[in-house]
This record gives sequence, structure tokens and C-alpha cells, in this order.
Amino acid sequence: MNADIARFVTAIDHVGIAVPDLDVAIAFYRDNFGLEVAHEEVNEEQGVREAMLHAPGDHGGTAIQLLAPLNENSTIAKFIGRSGPGLQQLAYRVSDVDVAADALRAKGLRLLYDNAKRGTSNSRVNFVHPKDAGGVLIELVEPAAGSAH
Amino acid sequence: MNADIARFVTAIDHVGIAVPDLDVAIAFYRDNFGLEVAHEEVNEEQGVREAMLHAPGDHGGTAIQLLAPLNENSTIAKFIGRSGPGLQQLAYRVSDVDVAADALRAKGLRLLYDNAKRGTSNSRVNFVHPKDAGGVLIELVEPAAGSAH
Ligand SMILES: [Co+2]
Ligand SMILES: [Co+2]
Repeated sequence: MNADIARFVTAIDHVGIAVPDLDVAIAFYRDNFGLEVAHEEVNEEQGVREAMLHAPGDHGGTAIQLLAPLNENSTIAKFIGRSGPGLQQLAYRVSDVDVAADALRAKGLRLLYDNAKRGTSNSRVNFVHPKDAGGVLIELVEPAAGSAH
Repeated sequence: MNADIARFVTAIDHVGIAVPDLDVAIAFYRDNFGLEVAHEEVNEEQGVREAMLHAPGDHGGTAIQLLAPLNENSTIAKFIGRSGPGLQQLAYRVSDVDVAADALRAKGLRLLYDNAKRGTSNSRVNFVHPKDAGGVLIELVEPAAGSAH
């Protein structure tokens, strides 16, 4: 009975990495791994400065999302304080975040938000509680209509 | 001066997740997210039972690698003991793991192995030390000649 959700997961959208300083991290990934920045923005609600990076020539593929805290109350600041910088989240691309969230709730998984919030590039996002997902903070991302994805 | 390495990173190959029990984890990702198992194997040298999973219809894209410990001396057993289950590694696909490793060493990053070891599906792999990579265990994967990638 996974047909209800299987239809909605279309790809691994991005892997999120908590970093103390966005510019330093962008330079690290550019200079050592050749990753290219496709997008940068500040999301006040999520408390982050962030950038999306891709392997050269793989611009439709899975992205690296670098997440730096905007302030000390940010989820990312708390993550770094608790665990240090490093892998923080794994995001699945879905065709409809509300339907996907409801399907997961029906299976007993807790979502962090009652209603989807604004993510990168006007996407709509929600998160599965890591305690219900084997310790992984799982994000669901519905890209904005008309976006490259 | 990232041309030397940029040529070698071609995509994000997989995201590795440490799990206590492989079969339980496969069922979790299948039943809740619709992910499909493309491959399973035991790697005695790495001390893991593992599976590669893909989003439906995205078989050439980035995979989820579920990693379960073969025994208590396994790196994955130690990771789970220290940090709990969850995101453990991020693997970049490279065209030549030896050249990529040398290029990173030349930039001052430490690699875990002097010589590449055998990874999933007869790939050749090496790892950047997390202390030199912002807390992320970065794997370099050169797929076997003639593999789907
Ligand atoms: Co994200
Ligand atoms: Co791996």
C-alpha cells in the first residue's frame, strides 16, 4: 500500500549541510570539488542564509544545500551547537507536498508543520520528524510551478 | 584553480544512511516513500550489509545507500553508537578516484586510504577525512567500467 505516496516522490532534491559561514563553505566546495552555485537566498522564517550547488554538468540532478544560521535562534545554529557542522537534512522532491504529508501522517509519521511553509525558490516544504524516520531529518519539497524542476 | 578536480566530479552518487537493521530500513523507505531497491550486497572489508535505493522513475539519479553494521567493529556500528542512526556520508561520483584523491591531497585534504578500496558494485572508493571537510564524511566513487553510471 505504498502507491499513495510512491506517486509523489520523484527524486532526491537536495542534501542539506549545516555550515557556520556560507561564503567560506561555498569557496570550499568550489575550490576542492568544482561545485557550482545555482542559487543563493536568505530565508528569514527558516533563519538561514543558504545556497544550492550542483556538480558541473549535472544541473537537473540532486543539489547540495549549504545552510548557515542567520542568528543564534536558528535551527541550524542549534544543530551546529549540538552536533557540529555536517549533514543535516535529506530532501525528497514531491509533486504535491500536502498530499505527501497527509499520506505520511496516515502511516503514523509526525510532520513538523501543520501546513507547508515556504522553502527555497518559492517551493513549498514540510519535514518528517527525525524520531519517526530513523534519525534522518527528511524534507518534502514541492517545487514552485514553472521552476526548472 | 579548480579545473583539476572539477573535471572529475560528475554527480552526487549517493547519500549514505546508517541503520541498525537493513531489512527494517528497506521496508521503511519502500512503504513510506516508495523507494525501490536497485542493489543489495555485503561488503566484508567495509563491515556492512548495504542496499542502494532510488526514487521511482529516477534510476540514474542520486541513490540512498542504507548501511547496516555486519559486526560491532564496523565503522557503521561505531557511528550508530556515537551519533545514533542517521545521515552518515555523502558520495560524489568521479571519473577517476586516484586522480581525484591526489588533487584533493595536493590541496591539503587528508584521505582515509592511501589507495582506493572496493566499494559497492565493484566501484573504487576513497574518503575525505570529515575534519578536513566541514564535518561531512565525503566519499569519492569511481563506478566500475561498464556499470550503468
Ligand atoms: Co532543504
Ligand atoms: Co557509500
